Amino acid sequence: MIDETSIQVGQEMHRFIADLFPICRSITGDGVRDTLCLIGKHIPVEIHEIPSGTKVFDWIVPKEWNIRDAYIKNTKGERIVDFKKSNLHVVSYSQPIQRKMAFGELQSHLYTFPDRPDWIPYRTSYYKESWGFCLSHQQFKEFMDEEYEVCIDSTFEEGHLTYGECYLRGETTQEILISCHICHPSLCNDNLSGIALSTFLAKALSLESLRYSYRFLFIPGTIGSIAWLALHEGQVSNIKSGMVVTGVGDPGAMTYKKSRQGNAEIDRAFSHILKASGKKHSIIDFFPYGYDERQYCSPGFNLPVGCFMRTPHGEYIEYHTSGDNLTFVRPEYLEESFICCLEVLTLLERNKTFLSQNPKCEPQLGKRGLYRAIGGESEGAKREMAMLWVLNLSDGNHSLLEIAERSTISFDVVYKAADVLSEHGLLKEVTC
Amino acid sequence: MIDETSIQVGQEMHRFIADLFPICRSITGDGVRDTLCLIGKHIPVEIHEIPSGTKVFDWIVPKEWNIRDAYIKNTKGERIVDFKKSNLHVVSYSQPIQRKMAFGELQSHLYTFPDRPDWIPYRTSYYKESWGFCLSHQQFKEFMDEEYEVCIDSTFEEGHLTYGECYLRGETTQEILISCHICHPSLCNDNLSGIALSTFLAKALSLESLRYSYRFLFIPGTIGSIAWLALHEGQVSNIKSGMVVTGVGDPGAMTYKKSRQGNAEIDRAFSHILKASGKKHSIIDFFPYGYDERQYCSPGFNLPVGCFMRTPHGEYIEYHTSGDNLTFVRPEYLEESFICCLEVLTLLERNKTFLSQNPKCEPQLGKRGLYRAIGGESEGAKREMAMLWVLNLSDGNHSLLEIAERSTISFDVVYKAADVLSEHGLLKEVTC
Amino acid sequence: MIDETSIQVGQEMHRFIADLFPICRSITGDGVRDTLCLIGKHIPVEIHEIPSGTKVFDWIVPKEWNIRDAYIKNTKGERIVDFKKSNLHVVSYSQPIQRKMAFGELQSHLYTFPDRPDWIPYRTSYYKESWGFCLSHQQFKEFMDEEYEVCIDSTFEEGHLTYGECYLRGETTQEILISCHICHPSLCNDNLSGIALSTFLAKALSLESLRYSYRFLFIPGTIGSIAWLALHEGQVSNIKSGMVVTGVGDPGAMTYKKSRQGNAEIDRAFSHILKASGKKHSIIDFFPYGYDERQYCSPGFNLPVGCFMRTPHGEYIEYHTSGDNLTFVRPEYLEESFICCLEVLTLLERNKTFLSQNPKCEPQLGKRGLYRAIGGESEGAKREMAMLWVLNLSDGNHSLLEIAERSTISFDVVYKAADVLSEHGLLKEVTC
Repeated sequence: MIDETSIQVGQEMHRFIADLFPICRSITGDGVRDTLCLIGKHIPVEIHEIPSGTKVFDWIVPKEWNIRDAYIKNTKGERIVDFKKSNLHVVSYSQPIQRKMAFGELQSHLYTFPDRPDWIPYRTSYYKESWGFCLSHQQFKEFMDEEYEVCIDSTFEEGHLTYGECYLRGETTQEILISCHICHPSLCNDNLSGIALSTFLAKALSLESLRYSYRFLFIPGTIGSIAWLALHEGQVSNIKSGMVVTGVGDPGAMTYKKSRQGNAEIDRAFSHILKASGKKHSIIDFFPYGYDERQYCSPGFNLPVGCFMRTPHGEYIEYHTSGDNLTFVRPEYLEESFICCLEVLTLLERNKTFLSQNPKCEPQLGKRGLYRAIGGESEGAKREMAMLWVLNLSDGNHSLLEIAERSTISFDVVYKAADVLSEHGLLKEVTC
Repeated sequence: MIDETSIQVGQEMHRFIADLFPICRSITGDGVRDTLCLIGKHIPVEIHEIPSGTKVFDWIVPKEWNIRDAYIKNTKGERIVDFKKSNLHVVSYSQPIQRKMAFGELQSHLYTFPDRPDWIPYRTSYYKESWGFCLSHQQFKEFMDEEYEVCIDSTFEEGHLTYGECYLRGETTQEILISCHICHPSLCNDNLSGIALSTFLAKALSLESLRYSYRFLFIPGTIGSIAWLALHEGQVSNIKSGMVVTGVGDPGAMTYKKSRQGNAEIDRAFSHILKASGKKHSIIDFFPYGYDERQYCSPGFNLPVGCFMRTPHGEYIEYHTSGDNLTFVRPEYLEESFICCLEVLTLLERNKTFLSQNPKCEPQLGKRGLYRAIGGESEGAKREMAMLWVLNLSDGNHSLLEIAERSTISFDVVYKAADVLSEHGLLKEVTC
Repeated sequence: MIDETSIQVGQEMHRFIADLFPICRSITGDGVRDTLCLIGKHIPVEIHEIPSGTKVFDWIVPKEWNIRDAYIKNTKGERIVDFKKSNLHVVSYSQPIQRKMAFGELQSHLYTFPDRPDWIPYRTSYYKESWGFCLSHQQFKEFMDEEYEVCIDSTFEEGHLTYGECYLRGETTQEILISCHICHPSLCNDNLSGIALSTFLAKALSLESLRYSYRFLFIPGTIGSIAWLALHEGQVSNIKSGMVVTGVGDPGAMTYKKSRQGNAEIDRAFSHILKASGKKHSIIDFFPYGYDERQYCSPGFNLPVGCFMRTPHGEYIEYHTSGDNLTFVRPEYLEESFICCLEVLTLLERNKTFLSQNPKCEPQLGKRGLYRAIGGESEGAKREMAMLWVLNLSDGNHSLLEIAERSTISFDVVYKAADVLSEHGLLKEVTC
């Protein structure tokens, strides 16, 4: 699968991120719809709308929030904070407001980073009625003790929570879930990089004939995964593996956070691929914080869903600031992340379990032309060792990944060995 | 429970040790009765007497030994070795004797430490008929080749083995066993420190309403625990956890020796508390030597009983000598040991298993006021993480201690999180 | 068993290797028969002949190969390569040939080591019709561009595969398999050292009364073990432990390669003995390459058979060259290897599981005279600790080896302790 992928994918992902960047997304509203519409230009996305007020487990789908404009004007009538310049300026889910007020009153609604004076913070207030502006500390320092005109032209209405779904049907109904959040405004690594990676993975896979079915979810964080799980409780048992993708474009090392199960196939697949990559990486244990893996791995579901990222959230200073922009995420890192995920999915597709058809003693490889004529070439020796390992461990209890783990041969070489042995009738797939 | 304990407990324990110090204890006899009588001034102790000759498994309760006086007089009639000055001078369970003898004969009955010339050794001869004196090497060097008058005014009679028991009834009949030996004469760390710790633990617990029942045994070493087990075989299945306490007043690091089971709740509780204490400590595997854990952990019982101490027996030079005195054990170490044990017992009392009432996805903590309004305070963050861990792992298979272990959050914080969640109806205890 | 072994065994093994050295062995033929005949002078060997063409699993027993003479003559009629000088000169299983040819044609049938110019390589071509000569690179450089007379006086005939078997009957039919290969010509470490070790082990064991039965196989590599397994499939379930012995005379550290099971009794026995030896050694995991353990550990058999050697094959430069000669293997290393194997077999013979007859509390060792009267002697302390460990873990679930492992006391001391306790009626063997 990997070979057919254009090596230009990093550039294309970055361009797609640039297209999505200006849209003001939140957990509901037209920003999400516009985002899904752009995704739909690359892959087939089915759009779902869940009405406000729908009870989903312990939560209720909130009212839909939309915003048209927002600003703070000084006495000269100048927009000194302007939503049109950056949609981070408004605290997400801010109540509408339109009136003049003294700086003293306004001040408690302003958020800045005094220690990173050029950057605008990103803040939300989904479940508490409130309003506010985020601005750079430079801007803040120009405020004076005078009256300001404050306007947030937002609406809260009974509407919908919107999410998108791309389902690729494979040979079996067993499925692999790939989930990303689409609820952040102009933030690149946290949110857009995951959207881009999911989109381009779906694009790449849609060209292949697949063993598993694949479900890509483009959902608002937390409430989105909770809503999806609540409305599809009956079908989660189809999920064989899954991953949340987020923060995959920054320069940090690739990081895989294991599922709550800790030793699921997806956990072992990421561990194997990252180790085999020879690149600096990090494999961390599950903890009940972070992204939507919190919901997928809640005890009542306990799904084999991990989280793939680069630098974990909160561990880079650009996190949840205007510093998380188009300069921060780079095509080369997006591409590296993309290739890692595609290799993991390729591994899952290929990770079958076989039964040696000659379990008693080794079969005679030489008479089948599977042995080097005269020894010496080291590539051939590796291939032979892989064949011997596959034959030795194909007792129905070891998948190819487990054989790769035990032999410390890369999955790819093990897979090719199994393929050759199958062609010669020496292995038969175990179906269970 | 801990907060209500006087911080003066180390001083009080040391004073109690001083009261007990002069008594000449052995595995039977009035010294044991006098000791139990003093313990009884602090806590309710039931005194049990087992007749000599009683068969207890492979052993027989020995005759009762009592001693009134003993000395060696020189030709001038001076008591050059005098039991009244130190009860260590007589080998415990010495046969009575009263006669004159040449130094040549006497010499083989004298025990000293040539390399620690100021200290008197401690020796016993419970199961072999014999007599002897222990003395400092300084004293020994003053002996001359002349005749000495030797007197040991001891008696061996059909009597009893005496032990004490303090039982605190809790909500359940499942009990926690705390066992210490009371058979050594004027030795402080080896014997009196354990007695004091047990006594003050019982005192502290008797003020509390308890989940478990507690059984404190004050028994002679080896034969005492064997006798107790033989006579209470039918009820040992009530013992959920237990600890032998000994040598808890010396300056060495706290040491916990695991039960034979190796991964019992008591083993994990001590490991957790000692690690969380940040103090230098040592956790060692079970071995079939040491104190009464040898009997509790014999294969036919295999009880979850560990051993709490500071420096293990035989690893400090004062061990079984007159150097193990009131100066060697210090209030601050007694207190530290006391607090560690009380923390462990508190953990056991609180170590319940819960079932999340919202196992599918996270419950919405915010609407219950359980989420920081605006993030930032790190104490709040820790509390939230603890709540998320408790919710995530409360699937009925993880006790709070196991949650603390996996999350590496201290038990205390995990317990408080569970408490708050229970109050809000988010958890329900699993009773099994 | 070990004590009765002559300490001259290393010298004797080396002499035996010298006797076997000149014979031209291959996987079939009279060289094998001659070899078995010499083994038969030391131990009773039953000789088996399997007809060419016999199907054994995926393989077919090949034609029998015999060779009488071979040479390359120059134009002067001088034998410049002469089989009579070294039987390594002919590629094993070479087709017969007798004709003159130009150097150009001959060259592709000559094998040398340019980087080890004094040594003759060892090459085989069992399953591909071919012929060739191996020679030192020094010899090769003297060839000129002229005509040579080439002669290989070999025969391929419907004959037999020959192997030898020495079976020592013990108390039970459960057996211990010791397997070595006998198919290499004048190579000492790879092949003759294993034959010598097996022979002298059989000799030593034949003098003992044995718990297990022992089966020594002297077989050609690969095809021999495959043939034996194919013809004795029904009885392999008797094999309780086994080892392939090979390469046991070189100066490298002793190496044990575990069976595929990885934690079989034989694996643990070798680990224990090698650790206890205090000598530099190496314990490595199973991999499906090497010697006949590949067949014994194929998934359809998965027998508890490891491989004992010194430097693993291919990791010493003398491997498969004329450098693997009588100087390379030394009596002292042969002897060390012999002693290690004998200690392992002694351990297996003695590794029983007992049930303490006093499981509840310790039995009173003192009244049985099993306790030091007055403590102090450290040998006695070790013996007592061993007795206490044996009593504590003899619950029917721990073999003596497991007790040795857990207590970190050497097996020998544990065994003696169990022996003394059994004599006193404190232990009873568990038979299962």
